Amino acid sequence: MELLKNAILKKGIVLSADILKVDSFLNHQIDVVLMKEVGIEFKRRFTNKRITKVLTVESSGIAPALFTALEFQVDTVFARKRKSLTLNEDLLTAEVFSYTKKETTTITISKKYLDKNDCVLIIDDFLANGEVCRGLIEVIRQADAEIAGIGIVIEKSFQKGRSIIDKTGIPVESLVRIASLEGGKVTFVET
Amino acid sequence: MELLKNAILKKGIVLSADILKVDSFLNHQIDVVLMKEVGIEFKRRFTNKRITKVLTVESSGIAPALFTALEFQVDTVFARKRKSLTLNEDLLTAEVFSYTKKETTTITISKKYLDKNDCVLIIDDFLANGEVCRGLIEVIRQADAEIAGIGIVIEKSFQKGRSIIDKTGIPVESLVRIASLEGGKVTFVET
Repeated sequence: MELLKNAILKKGIVLSADILKVDSFLNHQIDVVLMKEVGIEFKRRFTNKRITKVLTVESSGIAPALFTALEFQVDTVFARKRKSLTLNEDLLTAEVFSYTKKETTTITISKKYLDKNDCVLIIDDFLANGEVCRGLIEVIRQADAEIAGIGIVIEKSFQKGRSIIDKTGIPVESLVRIASLEGGKVTFVET
Repeated sequence: MELLKNAILKKGIVLSADILKVDSFLNHQIDVVLMKEVGIEFKRRFTNKRITKVLTVESSGIAPALFTALEFQVDTVFARKRKSLTLNEDLLTAEVFSYTKKETTTITISKKYLDKNDCVLIIDDFLANGEVCRGLIEVIRQADAEIAGIGIVIEKSFQKGRSIIDKTGIPVESLVRIASLEGGKVTFVET
């Protein structure tokens, strides 16, 4: 997706060989015009799937998930990372390890919003080590729902997440694939 | 906004005389069709304002803020409640007390995304005691930016937030105003 590559080259900041900061258009400040295009592109890539729900995790996944759900005209559900006072019914949960924060978080979804009749599209902002995706797959399976696929805005292809998910056989579509952040420079996977 | 009143009456759950749960369309599962209408309605209500940015706080404010920003074709910024590893530059911060959770949180915005040339529309899902709005007003003032107004999806008019904000002179538009949740029943403010 050229628009996204250009945004990364123009506004992304390489913090280290592992970390790309995209706070100016995706993670803190959100470019809604770009996000609308992200949603349209995910719709195009998963257009033949029967999708009933878009699933993501708070907070950075919410923007791309919402604009994708808008194109499919289905609801979005976002998994919570923190305990909610009004989220007290039966829950689907999974443990997710953050390699950058070096901590384990429990992600939580109410059972009411995911069941065996659902066919779920997972959307997230980044794919790095695949922990969030693994956790979301786990909660979808707990609900006996079907998984239509996984849509990733920015894949760091040099980390292990993509190969872990490929092994599950679930279709993955990444709008941008980054081969390396070495030397403070973004190198995309050649397509 | 009739569409929103109907969603509240049909899908909202009164948990106590203070707490209305709207997890099925606003806070956990998000009805994007309804959120698009919320954005259009906020655009209509603030249409004569020069707005350069929509500001909210993670996570539940993000959906209405994004769809409002889409109508204005401006960026959204969401304040973070948790420390971000990539958010390490100069920050604007404010302390916010949660009456439901009985705890103080620090909300954080990067100085890069708010400055004196901005005219900011604050959007949030709920207005209860006004603490989040007070915190967002505080960070906008730290940035010497202008405040265009405050747009609230659901105002609990029986709590003190609305009157606190009215005293600041900042225009407030609430799409739905709830007079009471007594007896497990939602009563709207008569208009």
